Amino acid sequence: MFQAGTIDSAAVAAVQEERVDWRFRSVAPSLSGLTIGEAAARGAKLFEDGFLGPFVVLDEEAVEHNLRTMAAWCAERGVALAPHGKTTMAPQLFERQLQHGSWGITCANAGHLRIYRAFGVSRILLANQLLDPSGLKWLAAELDADDDFEFVCWVDSVRGVELMTEALRGARRKVDVLVELGAEGGRTGVRDTETALAVAEAAHASPALRLRGSGGYEGALSHHTDEKSLQLISSYVDGLRELVFAFHAKGLLDDAGQIIVTGGGSAYFDRVADELTKDWGGLDVLPILRSGAYVTHDDGFYRVISPLGEHPRIGGVASFRSALRAWAQVTSKPTDELALLTIGKRDASFDEGMPEPRLIRKGDGPPSALEGHSIQKMNDQHAFLTLPASSPVEVGDWVALGLSHPCTVFDKWPLIPVVGPDGETVLDFVRTHF
Amino acid sequence: MFQAGTIDSAAVAAVQEERVDWRFRSVAPSLSGLTIGEAAARGAKLFEDGFLGPFVVLDEEAVEHNLRTMAAWCAERGVALAPHGKTTMAPQLFERQLQHGSWGITCANAGHLRIYRAFGVSRILLANQLLDPSGLKWLAAELDADDDFEFVCWVDSVRGVELMTEALRGARRKVDVLVELGAEGGRTGVRDTETALAVAEAAHASPALRLRGSGGYEGALSHHTDEKSLQLISSYVDGLRELVFAFHAKGLLDDAGQIIVTGGGSAYFDRVADELTKDWGGLDVLPILRSGAYVTHDDGFYRVISPLGEHPRIGGVASFRSALRAWAQVTSKPTDELALLTIGKRDASFDEGMPEPRLIRKGDGPPSALEGHSIQKMNDQHAFLTLPASSPVEVGDWVALGLSHPCTVFDKWPLIPVVGPDGETVLDFVRTHF
Repeated sequence: MFQAGTIDSAAVAAVQEERVDWRFRSVAPSLSGLTIGEAAARGAKLFEDGFLGPFVVLDEEAVEHNLRTMAAWCAERGVALAPHGKTTMAPQLFERQLQHGSWGITCANAGHLRIYRAFGVSRILLANQLLDPSGLKWLAAELDADDDFEFVCWVDSVRGVELMTEALRGARRKVDVLVELGAEGGRTGVRDTETALAVAEAAHASPALRLRGSGGYEGALSHHTDEKSLQLISSYVDGLRELVFAFHAKGLLDDAGQIIVTGGGSAYFDRVADELTKDWGGLDVLPILRSGAYVTHDDGFYRVISPLGEHPRIGGVASFRSALRAWAQVTSKPTDELALLTIGKRDASFDEGMPEPRLIRKGDGPPSALEGHSIQKMNDQHAFLTLPASSPVEVGDWVALGLSHPCTVFDKWPLIPVVGPDGETVLDFVRTHF
Repeated sequence: MFQAGTIDSAAVAAVQEERVDWRFRSVAPSLSGLTIGEAAARGAKLFEDGFLGPFVVLDEEAVEHNLRTMAAWCAERGVALAPHGKTTMAPQLFERQLQHGSWGITCANAGHLRIYRAFGVSRILLANQLLDPSGLKWLAAELDADDDFEFVCWVDSVRGVELMTEALRGARRKVDVLVELGAEGGRTGVRDTETALAVAEAAHASPALRLRGSGGYEGALSHHTDEKSLQLISSYVDGLRELVFAFHAKGLLDDAGQIIVTGGGSAYFDRVADELTKDWGGLDVLPILRSGAYVTHDDGFYRVISPLGEHPRIGGVASFRSALRAWAQVTSKPTDELALLTIGKRDASFDEGMPEPRLIRKGDGPPSALEGHSIQKMNDQHAFLTLPASSPVEVGDWVALGLSHPCTVFDKWPLIPVVGPDGETVLDFVRTHF
């Protein structure tokens, strides 16, 4: 159906040459001065070797499971995947996603685009409008310098088309665009077919743009999985199909080459795939999902809502596994009902649910399950752990936390240890760029 | 009363030698390849020179005003200031705070401590328990290697004292500690005098620790400024005084040298200073405030609650000025009531109130005031701007946003342009480490 996208493997490999030091606040001081690659080769243990709390780690087996699961499912369903890289902003993970067959990587803005291109990502879907003249000029230079670079972004207004056209004056290559469909109560995107056609006509007429199809984000329309919500999602995605047919009927896709239609966050990609793989009546259409959170999944929002979460809506496929875990120490237990952990809003996500206590580690012993505890709130650098009667939690213990919404975890950590099956041995480090 | 703390000026100056590139996502591509110092010397303009949206900038005049105002007020009130560096994590700003007479810099955890010491901060108050054995061993080595390094942290349990004592075995220098006082409904800290005395006695008896006084964080007790709330704050801070007298009466401060007592976030430092500068009956006590947010102030939480905010509780002193501003472009206006800005939860704070629209910039014209608009919610990379009737907002415009809670702004930006009085000319860049 398509060739997987590529990345500059040498640039990704060069990540391993960066020096580990105090800038990476959780990494054991004993690893300072080594390169990331050398530090990874040490097989350090999180506790024995003195990583500084709080720290967040990635579970290698869970990441690999999620990569394989999503890749296999997309291949079987006949959809391309351009995972949203905003989640991790980690070129090392982009490389693995591409090695698992991803069509390209999705980004959200011009800053992302520059980072992706610094690592030579060959196909980029910018799932947003890009109207910043500086960003557009930078993009045009990048496109003109590399014929193998494929790029698509969205437009949702005639004015947006005009601004792009103006900023792109003098560019050699056209910029591929999709008309973004929105919906009442949604986010960006045209609200009706009439506007969509006007935008498509403007894009088609622009000397700087090439209309390739339609796109949108169904995740803005619901946060629930009841049948009514799922119907709403399907109906919206059906609207993306209708736009393609409408554009085609008007001859607006005659220059498109392969038509692109894209939807799909991490909550409803099953429904998106169902709609986007319906019969296209002979049109050459590439349906692209953009799910990004699947790579780590989570212990919160996506666990509940994902089609491959705790209530799977896809049969016959193993659910995703949560790959992110935070560890923090209990430093205070001022009452029998309250303990404080050294982890806060600067260290862990809090915007889609509080971290969930999962394990407790006492002294040098192995971790054991911690039931019946919850995080009540977080300050900048503290988490409030509510203790049930006869809680085993004491000052000095460490608590492992499951996290909700991976996007706002990754953006807090420039270097994240990747651990093996024992949960403690560091196999690698992932470098993020926010 | 005391000598200001110091920082390694050469290490801070070396920040200017780092290369600007794609890692700093908002910085104009045309500045790539220059050092930070060279880029600052260009006097680049945010819009003309093509900084990529969204971006957050610091207003130099506001920062300098806030630095001077707080320093002068602390000097006049007879309190030392150890501003909480967690807010900015920017050694360049630490240096300016120390140049303005700060006693030292406050941190929250071992990761912070390592970063501060990489820049040679000579006096560090860790306003938290530090029980991590790895962090304590690292601290002990740092203390033993530099007799000029002064460090104080908190203890609030006998168990914590025991864990510190064990981890610090073999250290040459003792670690200075303060007993942390908490309160019902508060965060960390002992809840009663009996426990405080037990902890103080344990610290006094520890071969690894030296008891220096008491400390706490009144900001955990209220988020309001009615008289009842302020009374609660004063009463709590009075408790810090009472602990010092109680420890002294038992001879537990005989080795303390100058006694330290510290309170004071950015919301109630007026009340804290009032209490901590009362007559100490001949004891040699250094009262230390730790306010950190004052350096940028804000357009939200601190504007409302600060003693030098929009409803000042301190007379005869100019209020702080908000020094942080975000700029984002309007990329979509799908209905007459809604526009979307290219800025989200990864770019701006959202935990203590949404960003506030302040200015609009159309084309190349100067910005003008934008009244009656508000941000309704934020996604990872989008802000939902609610438009009043006859809003001037169009696709392509840029909107300047005031921000609430500086701590969760700084942690999203590794390099922040500092702008001059015109709001557009870049005078410098501030490098943060999160």
